[in-house]
Amino acid sequence: MAYVNDHYLKLKAGYLFPEIGRRVKKFSEEHPDAKIIRLGIGDVTEPLPAAVREAMHAAVDEMGQRETFRGYGPEQGYDFLRNAIAVNDFQSRGANVAADEIFVSDGSKCDTGNILDIFGLDNVIAVTDPVYPVYVDTNVMIGRTGNADEAGRYAGLVYLPVTAENNFTPALPTQKVDLIYLCYPNNPTGTVASRETLQQWVDYARKNDAIIFFDAAYEAFITDPAIPHSIYEIDGARECAIEFRSFSKTAGFTGTRCAFTVVPKGLKAKSATGEAIDLFALWTRRHTTKFNGVSYVIQKGAEAVYSPAGKQQVQELVAFYLENARILREELTKLGLKVYGGVNAPYVWLKTPGSLTSWEFFDSLLSKAHVVGTPGSGFGASGEGYFRLSAFNSRANVEEAVKRIQGALS
Amino acid sequence: MAYVNDHYLKLKAGYLFPEIGRRVKKFSEEHPDAKIIRLGIGDVTEPLPAAVREAMHAAVDEMGQRETFRGYGPEQGYDFLRNAIAVNDFQSRGANVAADEIFVSDGSKCDTGNILDIFGLDNVIAVTDPVYPVYVDTNVMIGRTGNADEAGRYAGLVYLPVTAENNFTPALPTQKVDLIYLCYPNNPTGTVASRETLQQWVDYARKNDAIIFFDAAYEAFITDPAIPHSIYEIDGARECAIEFRSFSKTAGFTGTRCAFTVVPKGLKAKSATGEAIDLFALWTRRHTTKFNGVSYVIQKGAEAVYSPAGKQQVQELVAFYLENARILREELTKLGLKVYGGVNAPYVWLKTPGSLTSWEFFDSLLSKAHVVGTPGSGFGASGEGYFRLSAFNSRANVEEAVKRIQGALS
Repeated sequence: MAYVNDHYLKLKAGYLFPEIGRRVKKFSEEHPDAKIIRLGIGDVTEPLPAAVREAMHAAVDEMGQRETFRGYGPEQGYDFLRNAIAVNDFQSRGANVAADEIFVSDGSKCDTGNILDIFGLDNVIAVTDPVYPVYVDTNVMIGRTGNADEAGRYAGLVYLPVTAENNFTPALPTQKVDLIYLCYPNNPTGTVASRETLQQWVDYARKNDAIIFFDAAYEAFITDPAIPHSIYEIDGARECAIEFRSFSKTAGFTGTRCAFTVVPKGLKAKSATGEAIDLFALWTRRHTTKFNGVSYVIQKGAEAVYSPAGKQQVQELVAFYLENARILREELTKLGLKVYGGVNAPYVWLKTPGSLTSWEFFDSLLSKAHVVGTPGSGFGASGEGYFRLSAFNSRANVEEAVKRIQGALS
Repeated sequence: MAYVNDHYLKLKAGYLFPEIGRRVKKFSEEHPDAKIIRLGIGDVTEPLPAAVREAMHAAVDEMGQRETFRGYGPEQGYDFLRNAIAVNDFQSRGANVAADEIFVSDGSKCDTGNILDIFGLDNVIAVTDPVYPVYVDTNVMIGRTGNADEAGRYAGLVYLPVTAENNFTPALPTQKVDLIYLCYPNNPTGTVASRETLQQWVDYARKNDAIIFFDAAYEAFITDPAIPHSIYEIDGARECAIEFRSFSKTAGFTGTRCAFTVVPKGLKAKSATGEAIDLFALWTRRHTTKFNGVSYVIQKGAEAVYSPAGKQQVQELVAFYLENARILREELTKLGLKVYGGVNAPYVWLKTPGSLTSWEFFDSLLSKAHVVGTPGSGFGASGEGYFRLSAFNSRANVEEAVKRIQGALS
């Protein structure tokens, strides 16, 4: 009989969001009249910007004429989009990233998993705790961990706790690690990293010949001008960092699908024989062999995010969700909850009241307020006792959710 | 320093199509006036069907209204598309495939590579030779092979020669293999497998507890009613086969991106401890953790392929390319070339004239006829001395290419 990849059997049951889905579905079936408000999964709710839709309509029409029809595009993305990204997201902020260092893809979730393909199994991996579960699960799947303990921590991974006690700033690893996941603005805590914090990480990585996987999917939500949007705003980052970006949260693309990854030329890791190998070349090989590019229509939509109208519309979208975050943060604080994040990020992260576990609070909020959030423990052992609420919803739903939570907690 | 995945270093230089691209680019630069006709990469050229475009326009409009906006969809695809696929592609042909066994993705190239993730490294892999290079390269990348020999054959893979000598029907492996790639209608040879041939493979797989990866990306081009379109038309295939399908060639989606994979419930492979493990569950875990679904707009376009108008338009597209294939096949045969395929497939496969190698014939055709084809040796050692021409082009270009080849060969 063919053999399965046994590492999959180490995975703890159910990826977080499917488990939430199951509990919500069960509750809905038992309470068909309950109007559930979902502040759980970080999924956008507002319409796709008009500039994006117009560009997609035009691109669909182009596909209808032989002269402008597009078949296979470059796997790395069309130059029109890569150029727009390089200029607007990086060069305009003084970050040295060239268009051909940008790999357009259908999602950061895919990219953060796929990037592992080009790295050997012997690397020591560091993740923050709590953390976006995909980072951990994809390492388990590929065989870089042992089994999980009762708290859900996998043997072989280095967990860097991130809690109120350390002001949500992970300490540098005390042991040598090779690959480090950082996500700022952070999912799930909604907190950010200062320029100084990022410089410490870059310095650590360069000193230890480590690579930082920098997930900046939420950079559009940064309101504080002192906070870097890209790791490449930090000196030396080109020598040690790969950055992941997405249009999902910036421009409402969660159902439209477009993202990109930056692999700087000259970034190296070593072979088993100690030779320095160019990661740009390896990722190019991976991306061109195992991926076939993003739909032309979608890439045209993404390009429109950088048009004057697109920029304006995206800014309005972001401001809308940030106002939701402000409401959540301020109103829940008034209720006496300890609330973090939600200033430069679309997530608020709160301490569960009393001695409730994350899942107990989840069940309580669902049953008493019909509000769905995300249990902090789903993001890692150090997330136990915390809870994430997402600002991605209509204003009416956010205000209603706040009211119901007030009722449930009083 | 972080470690790379050393298996990547075993890859022979350049994936086939980038190498063709480099040679064509060089020739173009040296001969800027040459009007090159590309029958190399199998990329469609005709407009996206009107029914598909109409559905995509409507879906873009839906994304502009809060009430009909779509964020994250199910990673496996929307039910509307999975149901349409199950009914039209399988159940209508008597193949027992349920909608929830269909995993919608952005491409078969991705899927045929990604499927390897759920299988252990100890499996013995069989591929036909010649073969679609992605099957081989993705196995190299994941670490299932040794180094390549001078002919490009990687140690550890079982190659099953497919040449005129065996009528392009590979013999069953003489050794035990665990995973077998079959592609019918075949890329690159344009040949098909009879029901009896497929039944032999299914019987072999069941007897040896092997899994067949059945790539049916070109099934829409089957003209002979006796030839199965799906492996699931064969008794017992649900116990041993995973099937890959794509809208790329069927409906002109190479630049639009939609495909799907069928993993039957109950299909098993074994763990290291010998336990039978459900592959449907493993692939579900892989697909939901490392993929975020295909764009809603694109899925609506794909659904329209199954509407009455869409079916009609797709049929016309396929007939158009098949007429191109007939012209290539018949006209090149008249020139005295040995020509195969091109009846139930959009590819013709020809024996290079005289003692020319595949790349020599490539260079000769490029320089004398300004026609780009694909060297057979690029698909494997047994492809040496063969050459692939694709029927994906305008009628005018195909006719002009035939004339020029006549001139070049006379």
